[in-house]
Amino acid sequence: MNPPATDPEALRACRVSVSLAERSYDVLVGKGLLDDARAFAALRPAAHAVIITNEVVGPLFAERVMHALRSRFSRISTVTLADGEVQKRWQTLNDIFDSLIAEHCDRNTTLIALGGGVVGDITGFAAACYMRGIDYVQVPTTLLAQVDSSVGGKTAINHPAGKNMIGAFHQPRLVIADVDTLSTLPRRELIAGLAEVIKYGAAVDAAFLGWLEDNLSRLLALDGDALVYAVRRSCELKAGIVAADERESGRRAVLNFGHTFAHAIEAGVGYGRWLHGEAVGCGMVLASRLSERMGLISSERASRLQIIIERAGLPTRPPDVDDATIVRLMRADKKSLDGKQRFVLLEGADDAVLAPAPEDLVERVLRDSRSS
Amino acid sequence: MNPPATDPEALRACRVSVSLAERSYDVLVGKGLLDDARAFAALRPAAHAVIITNEVVGPLFAERVMHALRSRFSRISTVTLADGEVQKRWQTLNDIFDSLIAEHCDRNTTLIALGGGVVGDITGFAAACYMRGIDYVQVPTTLLAQVDSSVGGKTAINHPAGKNMIGAFHQPRLVIADVDTLSTLPRRELIAGLAEVIKYGAAVDAAFLGWLEDNLSRLLALDGDALVYAVRRSCELKAGIVAADERESGRRAVLNFGHTFAHAIEAGVGYGRWLHGEAVGCGMVLASRLSERMGLISSERASRLQIIIERAGLPTRPPDVDDATIVRLMRADKKSLDGKQRFVLLEGADDAVLAPAPEDLVERVLRDSRSS
Repeated sequence: MNPPATDPEALRACRVSVSLAERSYDVLVGKGLLDDARAFAALRPAAHAVIITNEVVGPLFAERVMHALRSRFSRISTVTLADGEVQKRWQTLNDIFDSLIAEHCDRNTTLIALGGGVVGDITGFAAACYMRGIDYVQVPTTLLAQVDSSVGGKTAINHPAGKNMIGAFHQPRLVIADVDTLSTLPRRELIAGLAEVIKYGAAVDAAFLGWLEDNLSRLLALDGDALVYAVRRSCELKAGIVAADERESGRRAVLNFGHTFAHAIEAGVGYGRWLHGEAVGCGMVLASRLSERMGLISSERASRLQIIIERAGLPTRPPDVDDATIVRLMRADKKSLDGKQRFVLLEGADDAVLAPAPEDLVERVLRDSRSS
Repeated sequence: MNPPATDPEALRACRVSVSLAERSYDVLVGKGLLDDARAFAALRPAAHAVIITNEVVGPLFAERVMHALRSRFSRISTVTLADGEVQKRWQTLNDIFDSLIAEHCDRNTTLIALGGGVVGDITGFAAACYMRGIDYVQVPTTLLAQVDSSVGGKTAINHPAGKNMIGAFHQPRLVIADVDTLSTLPRRELIAGLAEVIKYGAAVDAAFLGWLEDNLSRLLALDGDALVYAVRRSCELKAGIVAADERESGRRAVLNFGHTFAHAIEAGVGYGRWLHGEAVGCGMVLASRLSERMGLISSERASRLQIIIERAGLPTRPPDVDDATIVRLMRADKKSLDGKQRFVLLEGADDAVLAPAPEDLVERVLRDSRSS
């Protein structure tokens, strides 16, 4: 763990840098950060900050974050959204804009996204569009948001026809991942977050997958040091990829491993019924079986991935939605180009590629997964 | 006029370059460009383009543009919006997204904005957000769009509390300004467009203001060569400023001369009742009188500007909305910072500055303008 440069004695946090020229920023990972004004020291002082949170997370942490922000902002307001994936929609975004305007927010206002992926994605998109772009900070309070959605500047809302169809690339100024918040997380959401952690091991870093196989029970038991390491390593791997390909014109697509299936599963069962991480868990099993069918990896490797996903408590079989619907929903995926669908497929020990796959093989993998 | 590099004999167009590193693009200004496939030669061939237009402009030009695009795109669809400023809203943006999804548009799809500022602004914002950003081309068919809104990448929709409050900076790949389209433009809209042309003369280039004083009657008579010069010079001036300050952190704000008053006037009378250019005409008179009151310019200079605005046929007095309402609406302006309102004020022969102004002076200027 690297102590921060500003105050090495006081703030114990790992610092992961996302290097994007004038849009660079730090991800701070540690325990007890939410309360600590020093965690927010990188922010430029300004007149006004608005904490955007939801009805579940707000009562737990908003007061503490507000306290920590006081040294930086003379006025701090709070906007509290309803809970749930269904909030990633136009109406909620519009409500946020109405609040910002009612509060006389201007181009110097900073938004603070306090919550999970839904709050982070919609707050980031609101920050991207309000007056054509204002600053925002991610304070992720779920494992999924800490290891994935809060880092990299992808912001979005959903469209009935597909997840994250409407959005923007807009980098935060700072990300504060306090693993202490995970102790209040429902177990189902903790497990869902593990799917994205496993993703980095499966698609980017085989050594990390080995570490996860050895330490999964510590993570499930909320061991603080294990959580800090898992979050930090995930953020490091993501930061490296985002720095090389901010707008996903190439390499960054590997971070979508399992997500083509996952988005179709989420849309097929109705947004919010399966958690995103649950769909990603199942999607990774399907994508690795597709990679196996295409001769890119061994069946042992696909099975090994399936085992850790099962051990984490994630679903490995698709939900009760007919395969034709899933296949149709996958066609709307953002990775499709000129009508050709593309998948992130595993190849070699820790590499993944973006490639088209024959639709009949995709259907066969879906069919086999139900009967296995 | 510089003939284009690709085919100097065939395509007679002035080329203005907007230099923004990998986001650079050309503005082509000329006559007979809409029909000409060569005008679109800079576009990368792709599977699918979608022309977004409205019910007034579409029937006049969509077929011709579609014909010119055929060499570049194998499939071309059209989305036709209702006419009017009121369309710059969420609902219409959502309708566009629904159409793009229904047409299976992907990240390689190019949007073609065919119409005035409303079509250009909303199409640009749709392109900025659809799948987090796709290409678009501006084909402006009003004078206002040709000299201002189609160049520089500012895209937006309105909020009931203020114009262009929600948007993005997203540069087009190409702008094609065919002055032939102006012959079908209602006279009121032609005159409204002249307000933005006069703005460049007033705030950036005194020599151009002199040219406009000498050639105003030619422009009002739709003299083709005069129109090409006025559009080209306006685009050149704007391109220089945008290249130096793409995201309006400084110098670019001078292009908002007259706009703080104008936005409040438009909102005060109800969007669409006054054309944007009409409000800008009146707003420039008010902003120059405010500059005069603050001792920045002489009363002669303010009067000279008022005279050409009057000669163009633009309003110089605010509408029948009470001054307190206008002042209140101005407080929501995007140029406000930390609660302080800022105005673009004239200073010297052809310079403008962004500075705060005392609210009592603003009220006095409004009051005087009604009694003068």
